[in-house]
Amino acid sequence: MFVSKNLSVNGENHLMIGKNDAVGLAKKFGTPLYVMDEEIIRENCRVYKEAIDKYYDGNGLVLYANKAFCTAWTFRLTAEEGLGADVVSGGEIYTAKKAGFPMEKVYFHGNNKTRDELVMAVESGVGTVIVDNRYELDVLNDIARERGVKQKIMFRIKPGIDAHTHDFIRTGQIDSKFGVALENGEALEIYEIASKMENVIPDGLHCHIASQVFEVEPFCEAARVMMEFAAELKDKFAIEINELNLGGGFGTRYVPEDDPIPYDEYIKAVSEVVKETAAQRGIKMPFMLMEPGRSIVANAGVTLYTVGGVKDIKNIRKYVSVDGGMGDNPRYILYQAKYSSVVANRAGDAATDKVTIAGKCCESGDLIAEDIMLAQTKPGDILAVLTTGAYNYSMASNYNRIPRPAVVAVNGGEAKVVVRRETYEDIIRNDVF
Amino acid sequence: MFVSKNLSVNGENHLMIGKNDAVGLAKKFGTPLYVMDEEIIRENCRVYKEAIDKYYDGNGLVLYANKAFCTAWTFRLTAEEGLGADVVSGGEIYTAKKAGFPMEKVYFHGNNKTRDELVMAVESGVGTVIVDNRYELDVLNDIARERGVKQKIMFRIKPGIDAHTHDFIRTGQIDSKFGVALENGEALEIYEIASKMENVIPDGLHCHIASQVFEVEPFCEAARVMMEFAAELKDKFAIEINELNLGGGFGTRYVPEDDPIPYDEYIKAVSEVVKETAAQRGIKMPFMLMEPGRSIVANAGVTLYTVGGVKDIKNIRKYVSVDGGMGDNPRYILYQAKYSSVVANRAGDAATDKVTIAGKCCESGDLIAEDIMLAQTKPGDILAVLTTGAYNYSMASNYNRIPRPAVVAVNGGEAKVVVRRETYEDIIRNDVF
Repeated sequence: MFVSKNLSVNGENHLMIGKNDAVGLAKKFGTPLYVMDEEIIRENCRVYKEAIDKYYDGNGLVLYANKAFCTAWTFRLTAEEGLGADVVSGGEIYTAKKAGFPMEKVYFHGNNKTRDELVMAVESGVGTVIVDNRYELDVLNDIARERGVKQKIMFRIKPGIDAHTHDFIRTGQIDSKFGVALENGEALEIYEIASKMENVIPDGLHCHIASQVFEVEPFCEAARVMMEFAAELKDKFAIEINELNLGGGFGTRYVPEDDPIPYDEYIKAVSEVVKETAAQRGIKMPFMLMEPGRSIVANAGVTLYTVGGVKDIKNIRKYVSVDGGMGDNPRYILYQAKYSSVVANRAGDAATDKVTIAGKCCESGDLIAEDIMLAQTKPGDILAVLTTGAYNYSMASNYNRIPRPAVVAVNGGEAKVVVRRETYEDIIRNDVF
Repeated sequence: MFVSKNLSVNGENHLMIGKNDAVGLAKKFGTPLYVMDEEIIRENCRVYKEAIDKYYDGNGLVLYANKAFCTAWTFRLTAEEGLGADVVSGGEIYTAKKAGFPMEKVYFHGNNKTRDELVMAVESGVGTVIVDNRYELDVLNDIARERGVKQKIMFRIKPGIDAHTHDFIRTGQIDSKFGVALENGEALEIYEIASKMENVIPDGLHCHIASQVFEVEPFCEAARVMMEFAAELKDKFAIEINELNLGGGFGTRYVPEDDPIPYDEYIKAVSEVVKETAAQRGIKMPFMLMEPGRSIVANAGVTLYTVGGVKDIKNIRKYVSVDGGMGDNPRYILYQAKYSSVVANRAGDAATDKVTIAGKCCESGDLIAEDIMLAQTKPGDILAVLTTGAYNYSMASNYNRIPRPAVVAVNGGEAKVVVRRETYEDIIRNDVF
């Protein structure tokens, strides 16, 4: 199937995920179930890593953007693959530390890190804090001074690039809650101020232009803008940056119409721009960072549901209800995101039926997909929704007090629970009785 | 303040919630913090209860729709007020039972209740299952037969009323995942089938037309349609319904422009319609059920945040960042919902500043309010977002691995934790290390 080379159909007409029968996984671990394919994740990590080796002389580091799917398991996995980590909260730092992740390879993001989180970052040995604004810079410098340390930092810069995507996931423009702007002099000013502070070490620049970008050019343009800014820093203040972090946002294929660019092409194109601008402007080649999240995990994920009632409203619509919904996958109700789906127990059957997949939450907007083509379904079937590895588990809620599903990792023919299914006891754990 | 009579400003210019200084609550319990005013919840319950007494001879029961805000505490509170409960999942049933709620007053909803949930409902003594579709009816009858019991049921009917509200929260039409339709004969058919089954006792009809409805007429129209259907059941099959459940959807005031109708007026108007139609069609007056959720808890809730960075982008926008966001309040990113906000430590100051309140999640769409007027803010201020009692805590997620806030209940000058703040240990509890 198009989303992952590890999806296939076996002799029983069942969907296979790696060497695991999806129907068997549903039976063994229950539904709804998040299944993550370890092999695909590792391969995705390597595409980026090898591209940096090939096109940028290995002078860089791939940071996995944990917000896409953050577990102790993924921290271990990405550490094994030699990746660094992009984290965005105390909770992600806490998980990294508990998972034994090398903290010096952790980059801490966020438009409004709390004081407690910054203390935690400094005390946990987080390698780099990506400072968002002047207030944070002052707080961080104080925290580092109180502890007698020097904290390495970068700055989040708004490069002013508009990468044409959904309004809600567009970033990088001046009208953004994230970062400091170039065009009004904010970025220059904060870098200069920081360079004179005692307890922070400004080491480079970060930008993030958008999410789900299917073009190379906006990344090249961002790289150019950032390198020009690096040259300006050198010209004006004799400051040389060591690191350039170009963020993430590389598009993932959810439906056949999506047309992502091979990820190594981004690295190739961007590397050329950086080399070229460095040469032109007489500045050194920075250590390059990239922050893929979705493109590392999205196509490794499949969500398995059991079909309940099928409601065929003649001449109007056919609803196929599943035993999960917006609680485990809020991307439809949030963004009207599109997914491809397969009836896992008749995976090779032709998709002849136009259906809407409804979740079980008490909310009309709780759908997984609208008017998609699917094989005929009946109660008890196992429905596989593909490409759910990113922003599903990480955004899951207990709306309607529905426990969050387990996450099972498959690797070849092996399958193991990496996040346990929530119980009803978990749901009431913090209620005071 | 307009959202609740219990909000005021004290001599220190601080926001008071009941007799509690909001700034003191933030200091004592930390932020972000959900504060719920018990007195307001009890009063809201009584408005509905007294209206049924006054306009419908007390021949009815108010069911609190727990999906709006479900905790052990609210189960106890609504039980004390003599309300029944509208629940939508095994998790809500589990909480009700643990809280000692009288299970015979529980009504169990959902378009796709799982077999496990139906077993739980029957075994827990849930009073009434509101059956959504034919498949569920068969499963439920089997479960009840296996246990040698007879389960009281109602049916969810689509009355075909369009109450003109946001697409995502509109229900009640034929193109809905919920219930059986009148116009194609489905409703008549399923009621007749059920009336011949051994282990279910069809006892009445349910409908739910929409959410956030600010008019009386759609409710009256729904009541008329349902009573006409009751008459048809009597004419065709000599079946008399005992209960009529008209659902919820009564509008709540979030911003001054919202113009809700006093809740007793809905009951008054609907009662008249039911009485009139019963007399005209020669059927008995049904026991009446109503399911308010939002209108019971929304205006009892205030969320307190600490302000972090304030980003004034000249000629563009001023962002005020807070230490929560879409994780604890997803209603802006879901529906672009509007809220009223106050700087709690300068609550009486004039709102002279146009700002956008940004959350701390790594997502551009993570806002709480866009371009609202607020008093001048600075880091460390306490921001109070009003009317957050419904669909905030209940929809909260751990996106970015941010722990969910505590819920504190205030009652006069008393304040107690009713849901404990999540810890980082809670966040990783189900991770397999």
